[in-house]
Amino acid sequence: MEIRKVFLTESEIPRQWYNLLADIKLNPPLGPDGKPVTPDMLAPVFPMNLIEQEVSSERWIDIPEDVLKVLNIWRPSPLIRALSLEAYLDTPARIYYKNESVSPPGSHKPNTAVPQAYYNKVFGIKKITTETGAGQWGSALAFACSQFGIECKVFMVRVSFKQKPYRKSMMETWGAKCVASPSSETKAGQDILATHPDTPGSLGIAISEAIEAAVTDTSGQTRYSLGSVLNHVLLHQTIIGLEAKKQMEKVGEYPDIILGCAGGGSNFAGISFPFVYDKINGKDIDIYPVEPAACPTLTRAPFVYDHGDTARYTPLLPMHSLGHAFVPPPVHAGGLRYHGMAPMVSQLVAEGIIEPKAVSQLDAYAAGVVFARTEGIIPAPETNHVISSVIAEALKAKEEGKEKVILFNFSGHGLIDLVGYDKYFSKELTNFALSEKEIKAAEKVFENFPKPELLKSR
Amino acid sequence: MEIRKVFLTESEIPRQWYNLLADIKLNPPLGPDGKPVTPDMLAPVFPMNLIEQEVSSERWIDIPEDVLKVLNIWRPSPLIRALSLEAYLDTPARIYYKNESVSPPGSHKPNTAVPQAYYNKVFGIKKITTETGAGQWGSALAFACSQFGIECKVFMVRVSFKQKPYRKSMMETWGAKCVASPSSETKAGQDILATHPDTPGSLGIAISEAIEAAVTDTSGQTRYSLGSVLNHVLLHQTIIGLEAKKQMEKVGEYPDIILGCAGGGSNFAGISFPFVYDKINGKDIDIYPVEPAACPTLTRAPFVYDHGDTARYTPLLPMHSLGHAFVPPPVHAGGLRYHGMAPMVSQLVAEGIIEPKAVSQLDAYAAGVVFARTEGIIPAPETNHVISSVIAEALKAKEEGKEKVILFNFSGHGLIDLVGYDKYFSKELTNFALSEKEIKAAEKVFENFPKPELLKSR
Repeated sequence: MEIRKVFLTESEIPRQWYNLLADIKLNPPLGPDGKPVTPDMLAPVFPMNLIEQEVSSERWIDIPEDVLKVLNIWRPSPLIRALSLEAYLDTPARIYYKNESVSPPGSHKPNTAVPQAYYNKVFGIKKITTETGAGQWGSALAFACSQFGIECKVFMVRVSFKQKPYRKSMMETWGAKCVASPSSETKAGQDILATHPDTPGSLGIAISEAIEAAVTDTSGQTRYSLGSVLNHVLLHQTIIGLEAKKQMEKVGEYPDIILGCAGGGSNFAGISFPFVYDKINGKDIDIYPVEPAACPTLTRAPFVYDHGDTARYTPLLPMHSLGHAFVPPPVHAGGLRYHGMAPMVSQLVAEGIIEPKAVSQLDAYAAGVVFARTEGIIPAPETNHVISSVIAEALKAKEEGKEKVILFNFSGHGLIDLVGYDKYFSKELTNFALSEKEIKAAEKVFENFPKPELLKSR
Repeated sequence: MEIRKVFLTESEIPRQWYNLLADIKLNPPLGPDGKPVTPDMLAPVFPMNLIEQEVSSERWIDIPEDVLKVLNIWRPSPLIRALSLEAYLDTPARIYYKNESVSPPGSHKPNTAVPQAYYNKVFGIKKITTETGAGQWGSALAFACSQFGIECKVFMVRVSFKQKPYRKSMMETWGAKCVASPSSETKAGQDILATHPDTPGSLGIAISEAIEAAVTDTSGQTRYSLGSVLNHVLLHQTIIGLEAKKQMEKVGEYPDIILGCAGGGSNFAGISFPFVYDKINGKDIDIYPVEPAACPTLTRAPFVYDHGDTARYTPLLPMHSLGHAFVPPPVHAGGLRYHGMAPMVSQLVAEGIIEPKAVSQLDAYAAGVVFARTEGIIPAPETNHVISSVIAEALKAKEEGKEKVILFNFSGHGLIDLVGYDKYFSKELTNFALSEKEIKAAEKVFENFPKPELLKSR
């Protein structure tokens, strides 16, 4: 029988994360005064142990035993050879995917939610606040907080809160509190509600509310948590790629092409960074982050300094950005609707080490349906994007008659986001084409900000 | 680090199913004439290779390579030590669960859907019909049919079809057709619609429609498929217990107590039958099927001959039954709302080899929430029932100061059934107490049927 699924045993689980900051240069985040942010300035928002990870340049960072114990509920995750998809495409390419959908909330997000909850716990924090759009991140943090006995409060973008009542049920089942954002619980929320009572909400507003709720808690025992973009978040996700590398070795393979979908950048970073290390050290690999054409941060937006949130509470981050005021079109891949991109991923694109691709909503769903009917697992709307590019690469390999080895991250299943498939089948979904004019207009918000340097890591 | 998750490698996957029919006696199914049904009589409904399995008394039956290849997408499934639940209960018991929720549709159902689709394919069948209540079985068969290129038609109980539109989306994503039952596509459906246009539908009606749709297809290339109750279905599920046995051995354990929730009986049979074999051969194990108190087939209904469906299309089966006309109260565990019980499971209860338990809806949800907040996985409403009994056994072990080893089947996750949790938290759920009078009234329908013999296997 041909090998379909490659396991690692419990004893083979990686015990350190890989920190790409040891191997690339990054522009520093800047404060309101245009000067680099110091760790102290972030202390009201994050616990100091996570801030230390954020700025660390150690190449290998130990994963605490108590974190491993929780990750072990579903990790090591399986690496699966997409034999049926290969047969369907009649390609000489060998396609492998890392199945991150086997986590309790169904995505890769708990890989960082668990250590974040752990480090907050160790630091004496009693409560974590966060925002969530489609709900994957809020669910993951709710799950993680329940594992460490920490209170969790999630501000969920109002329109999603209404469209997806069961995401709230998930969070509540894990003991978290979830409210629609804008809420009347924060000044940021009250201000918006006063002027726009019928607003559908946005990730930017929700981030503002979550940060405000954390920093204004006078007990000093509340902190904020972010599910992507930041260095320590990407660090935690590298367990995906480190496991995949071991699993590929077990079957005598090494990837020619690596792909992950990219919204904030964390699942793409997770699968690819351990291989980016190899590429920096001379390996010949093509590495592709895949984003939605409706929110083309890496493929069409410049590399600039911009804020991580609409309300400009966060420092200026060096990243590809469509502008902090940009409201992405309502594609169903809520996890990819972000105006910016992780600074580390942005830096790799700026240096030409990785090469971004963009996929339209309809192409993404078409690919997802092919995957479901061949490989059997229904992908999350976000994951559909990477699958579309995987299929394109496999067909290219066929055209060229090359036995390419393709590895991608199957970031999550779509069982809680079937509404998108429903609309796809009833032909209610459309693509969203952004004009250059719209993009230029959105980008206006950062034109007077400092510019990041074009650093070269190699 | 304490071992939490026990894997089997791909090469350790069981290559044969265990057939309990080699080791127990069973009353035969009876036709309308009161005489045993012959394989030929079932030929319009099922393909002959599955009928042969249904009546086989071979102890070990080979799993075809093409079936293994599909099962391998998620199998071997992990065996997990419930360390956090143990700690929460402060019990000396060691609790292990087999995580069947990692399959693409999220439950144990594909373990039989895949071989059923395969055997139909091999027999030349082009289309399979079935019914579904809550949707787990319909989804699993849709998935399995997509893997073998077979058309799939699902009649879904109307009330569930309306309440759970995303179950239909799942089936459609896998390429199946799903209609609300009663439908206008069958005579059985038309008859009901003519007299009861507003009926919410029932599993009984849906089964009648699915069987009719299969046997009236003049091409001769359509057959019907059932997701529980029958011998070959239970046979296919034994891969769960066979894997669990190997996994327990790996960590030097053997269970004192084995539990599974029971509706039709297949997931309970899957985890327990390989151990029932041991018990018949002298091992001291307590084996408990756990059913909902609202549909107390094993705990309160007699062992009789009754039909498997309301419309009496099926042969008479020897089973514990509340009567084929019994409409179970609307508990959220749709998968456990069945008037009868698998003949093999019924026979084991009749002989005292296994001992049934019943759990109320509210106790089940309370247990599910405890499990979600300790072990991290949100259980299906059906699975909540077995968890309630597991917790009771673990607390009993604590009282008695005994280091019991408990094994149970985690039959599915609840991510597509969060509506039940939603209602639980908002206190909209209630228990359903059936009076003796109600049960006696329901049982009236089979009082003039033949009676099964009290066979003794040991």
